[in-house]
Amino acid sequence: MRVLTDADVVTVDPEVAVDAARESLRRFARGELAAPPRVSAELGDLDYYYTTGGLPGGVSGFRAYRAGTPAGDQLVALWDAAGSLFGIVVGDELGARRTGALGGAAVEAMSDERASTLAVIGTGKQAWTQVWAGSAVRSPELVRVHSRDERNREVFAAEVRDRLGLRAETVATPASAVRDAEVVVLATRSESPVIDSADIAPGAHVTTVGPKGRTRHEMPPELLERAAVVTCDSPSQAAALPDFLADPARLVSLGDVLIGAHPGRESSDQLTVYCSVGLAGSEVLFADRLFGAISG
Amino acid sequence: MRVLTDADVVTVDPEVAVDAARESLRRFARGELAAPPRVSAELGDLDYYYTTGGLPGGVSGFRAYRAGTPAGDQLVALWDAAGSLFGIVVGDELGARRTGALGGAAVEAMSDERASTLAVIGTGKQAWTQVWAGSAVRSPELVRVHSRDERNREVFAAEVRDRLGLRAETVATPASAVRDAEVVVLATRSESPVIDSADIAPGAHVTTVGPKGRTRHEMPPELLERAAVVTCDSPSQAAALPDFLADPARLVSLGDVLIGAHPGRESSDQLTVYCSVGLAGSEVLFADRLFGAISG
Repeated sequence: MRVLTDADVVTVDPEVAVDAARESLRRFARGELAAPPRVSAELGDLDYYYTTGGLPGGVSGFRAYRAGTPAGDQLVALWDAAGSLFGIVVGDELGARRTGALGGAAVEAMSDERASTLAVIGTGKQAWTQVWAGSAVRSPELVRVHSRDERNREVFAAEVRDRLGLRAETVATPASAVRDAEVVVLATRSESPVIDSADIAPGAHVTTVGPKGRTRHEMPPELLERAAVVTCDSPSQAAALPDFLADPARLVSLGDVLIGAHPGRESSDQLTVYCSVGLAGSEVLFADRLFGAISG
Repeated sequence: MRVLTDADVVTVDPEVAVDAARESLRRFARGELAAPPRVSAELGDLDYYYTTGGLPGGVSGFRAYRAGTPAGDQLVALWDAAGSLFGIVVGDELGARRTGALGGAAVEAMSDERASTLAVIGTGKQAWTQVWAGSAVRSPELVRVHSRDERNREVFAAEVRDRLGLRAETVATPASAVRDAEVVVLATRSESPVIDSADIAPGAHVTTVGPKGRTRHEMPPELLERAAVVTCDSPSQAAALPDFLADPARLVSLGDVLIGAHPGRESSDQLTVYCSVGLAGSEVLFADRLFGAISG
């Protein structure tokens, strides 16, 4: 059995991660990815969560993570078709990069191909992995960064320059970040909208990673009304949430766009939205790809 | 993070295992062991099961195992109080030895102290770990072994002699195995009684590890009527089973006997029964003990 940690996960190229995300989304759309609802067990102040998934007759396993104090390390475990537990991944990077890679697949499938400006609101790990994966599917001339903390913005922009080799600038307001941007990533913990709908360009693609409940959401609900297409990596998981912002009937499975079962964006002036919920089973396929990509 | 396998688990002395089982049972009886119901997720032909448990403010984690074909390796994962995933145990030995150790604690708490004959029906892994743990709490002069397959009996008896240093003999019928035995272990997959109640001596202690449903059971239900005390490692888990043989109202928590909250056996002619269900959380405390016992 092999064990990988965050130090290994961060060496993986975003192209590899996005390719694994595409495979998860496509297989999910074709009914080939088993991805049952998350289950949990309560231990007093600490909850253990298990998202299980895999390919029938192929690799399967789960991600285990904890909610509470301290949340602690996450764990992904993989079994092969013969029942051998062949890999363990410990740490928080895999889950975040998996989420970023699904977002990268969304940007590739939904944003204008000529997108030249990527705006990001938020500078945490989720924001980073969205930009990291987005850089693998588009070649933005500029990444505009905003968050409430000025120092965080500067650090984030410097990392975009240093690690991704992209031009990056920080801006003082969300409006100046998103104006004219063809790709907008919202990755905050904000429970009230961090931008005005009117500031978003007509043909933009918007990804929301943070809160998206009916009463608490980082994205203005008006964007859903304006959007020509609203996708989600797992509409069934979204529908199972007690308080999801978007009408489940409107949610298109992102995988359906990837396999051509839904047309997705049909013109450069359509606004599109991707709601990230974390497709179950995608961690397992991503981790499986990692073991292939990182020589043992 | 340390990783242990079956090769490590089998080196642990039964005394260490039974001591960990005692701790789990005592803490459970005192309300100090968090042991919520098992949860599961279905992946087509394969189900993943998670039993979560631990000490509030202390070690916690889970055992994951699969039902289906192939069942494959089991996994136990442990987090410390600070949230660090510090240990992984891979393989089937830990679960079986944990069950054996709980059975050892039952034999210690419930059987006649002067027990000189231990009878075992069944020669699989569960039968072995019950005898293994029983040898740590009693000093039987004789282990009598019966199973349907003559060759399995001989192999099992030879292992009792070689590995536990006890006198062992094989017998051709269940009745001749259990007659006059002060400790009787039933560890079969049989769905109909493997012994007659009348063959069990008045003051015997009987442990049943195998099927114990109302319609499918290895133990004759008459033994429950004869028994002065019927314990279970987790009466709440037993009560949650849809079809448990024993009336939940009669089940005494084995931990209550260990901490003196229930008197247990009160004379040498009382018959006692222990129904093994696998106390959740006991794998976690056992695995934690393993990491302490096996130097890294």
